[in-house]
Amino acid sequence: MSFTADDYRLMARALQLAEQGLWTTSPNPRVGCVLVQAGEIVGEGWHAKAGEPHAEVHALKAAGERARGATAYVTLEPCSHYGRTPPCAEALIAAGVSRVIAAMTDPNPLVAGKGLAMLQAAGIETASGVLENEARELNIGFVSRMTRGRPWLRLKAAASLDGKTALNNGVSQWITGPDARRDGHRWRARACAILTGYGTVRDDDPTLTVREVETTRQPLRVIVDSRLETPATAKVLQGGPVLIAAAVDNPEKAEILRSTGAEIVFLPNSQDKVDLPGLMQELGRRGINEVHAEAGCKLNGSLLREGLVDEFLFYFAPCLIGDDANGLFGLPALTTLAGKQALQIRDVRQIGPDIRLIARPS
Amino acid sequence: MSFTADDYRLMARALQLAEQGLWTTSPNPRVGCVLVQAGEIVGEGWHAKAGEPHAEVHALKAAGERARGATAYVTLEPCSHYGRTPPCAEALIAAGVSRVIAAMTDPNPLVAGKGLAMLQAAGIETASGVLENEARELNIGFVSRMTRGRPWLRLKAAASLDGKTALNNGVSQWITGPDARRDGHRWRARACAILTGYGTVRDDDPTLTVREVETTRQPLRVIVDSRLETPATAKVLQGGPVLIAAAVDNPEKAEILRSTGAEIVFLPNSQDKVDLPGLMQELGRRGINEVHAEAGCKLNGSLLREGLVDEFLFYFAPCLIGDDANGLFGLPALTTLAGKQALQIRDVRQIGPDIRLIARPS
Repeated sequence: MSFTADDYRLMARALQLAEQGLWTTSPNPRVGCVLVQAGEIVGEGWHAKAGEPHAEVHALKAAGERARGATAYVTLEPCSHYGRTPPCAEALIAAGVSRVIAAMTDPNPLVAGKGLAMLQAAGIETASGVLENEARELNIGFVSRMTRGRPWLRLKAAASLDGKTALNNGVSQWITGPDARRDGHRWRARACAILTGYGTVRDDDPTLTVREVETTRQPLRVIVDSRLETPATAKVLQGGPVLIAAAVDNPEKAEILRSTGAEIVFLPNSQDKVDLPGLMQELGRRGINEVHAEAGCKLNGSLLREGLVDEFLFYFAPCLIGDDANGLFGLPALTTLAGKQALQIRDVRQIGPDIRLIARPS
Repeated sequence: MSFTADDYRLMARALQLAEQGLWTTSPNPRVGCVLVQAGEIVGEGWHAKAGEPHAEVHALKAAGERARGATAYVTLEPCSHYGRTPPCAEALIAAGVSRVIAAMTDPNPLVAGKGLAMLQAAGIETASGVLENEARELNIGFVSRMTRGRPWLRLKAAASLDGKTALNNGVSQWITGPDARRDGHRWRARACAILTGYGTVRDDDPTLTVREVETTRQPLRVIVDSRLETPATAKVLQGGPVLIAAAVDNPEKAEILRSTGAEIVFLPNSQDKVDLPGLMQELGRRGINEVHAEAGCKLNGSLLREGLVDEFLFYFAPCLIGDDANGLFGLPALTTLAGKQALQIRDVRQIGPDIRLIARPS
């Protein structure tokens, strides 16, 4: 089946609707739906929150009787199973739509294609693949969890133009300007979890909550703290759920930390450090789609070395600090430049006086 | 006097012509001239090389009799003194032009305004200030030399996204791609001198000539080498004029270096290092307008600390190398981030897979 310009235009609208759920659908994917009858949009919907109706149900409700014979544009294949809500494929069949176009099939290999098959079995024409890349990008974390069992890990770091994040005396403060900070909070807001290390808790005592933008949901804060050294007074322990990933138990410290409401999970590797790939799998099991890492040189370096970083979100402030200061990635010394981590730059722009750069391993 | 859209358009053309001399006019400024008679361009010219005719003379020659009563657009106030060529103001008077618009007056405070005054005294209408910023930028090195007695220093550096230039075992090779390298050679080509340090000569043995683009002129290569340690076999000593700035004499080494054709100048400071501000003044005295520095962490840091860097030309390759590698600027440890060097970003763009960033101290 070949798609028309209208198919692209209407799917772009459905994606726009899906984006409304960018900060709230977790652990569900962001999904939008547009119902079109004789060239006219008769219903629109998007999924807002787990447990609430899916995009298709909202759009069908808005269309009412005009859904009969309509074409449904959905950014993700309609579900075919009973979850917290009944399957959307059934609702589309019951409403009498005649055609369903999906941007992409369900990324879960166990159910991919089943929703479209259920529709086809009911005599509904189906197709998939309009703006598929855009749909995948919108749910990159959900896709990652469904296909790899682990979240999409986005590593955020702010540095001077010479790659320095803080002074070697531990003095660390905002390097970038307010616009870049606000932009950083928007990326935090879409994440299901914010990841940091004990070193950052000790040096900066951050809260790691979403503040500069309005959101109804605070991501889980995850602290990599092998020896449970996080003090009970750490700001990160206030203001929402916290998971501490540790390697070595210390019942006394654990008790104190648990009394603040934090959950502790032990994931030791053979060096009595936290098994980071294991932690990512654990977060996947907990329904975490996107992890936003804001850590120091050491954890950044470990995540990079373990091949766990899927995306880099760099903010560069227009200043120079000099080589004595702390850098971005603690990595073992290379002997040849062939060992460098190659990236592909996806976006560069100015945000206020700063530069934002988005890259992925190439 | 207020300027018309035509004034801007024609001056923009004159600037375009002036740019033809970007790589060749040194130590003279780049100058373009357009002669306009009743809305029609009747002559154009640009200065190509010291000792050859100035822009105005070329344009007057092209216009012939049609210069009479014409308006002359010149990117720099016409000269009023006898240098290697007769004064252009006289030539414009002799040709009978009726109006002269300059983008800017002569930056040399000793002669600024004299050319326009000579024209006015001959009854010619004059004005200045059309696209003045653009004209200044085009001759930023000449303006620097005339007003500060020293060249404009542009520091070029190529690094990974985490600010690393080479490994700590001395292994250093091209980090950026061929497009960025070619762009770097275009910046070398416009410079009057390429500045480096002995450390770079020792570690990389570069030639520091302009190669990736075609040019008729090779800049002077300047090596900061306090103790005359540059070996006579260094590639930089071949292929054109070389100036070695030293601090401590060593007649035997000096003799060997001089035998390769290099000139040595002794500019010691109180620490028996090269007096870098003194070197800049010396280069200014030698007619050097723009210096292009390509050095290592140490000289970069010294130039920055001494406040000698006027512009940064950074190329960032899409890769990460890790903190163990060598960085961009060796600077003494800061105790607060207030001591950082603040910059203003002027341009960011992708060049091939790399990012080029131009910034100036703010």
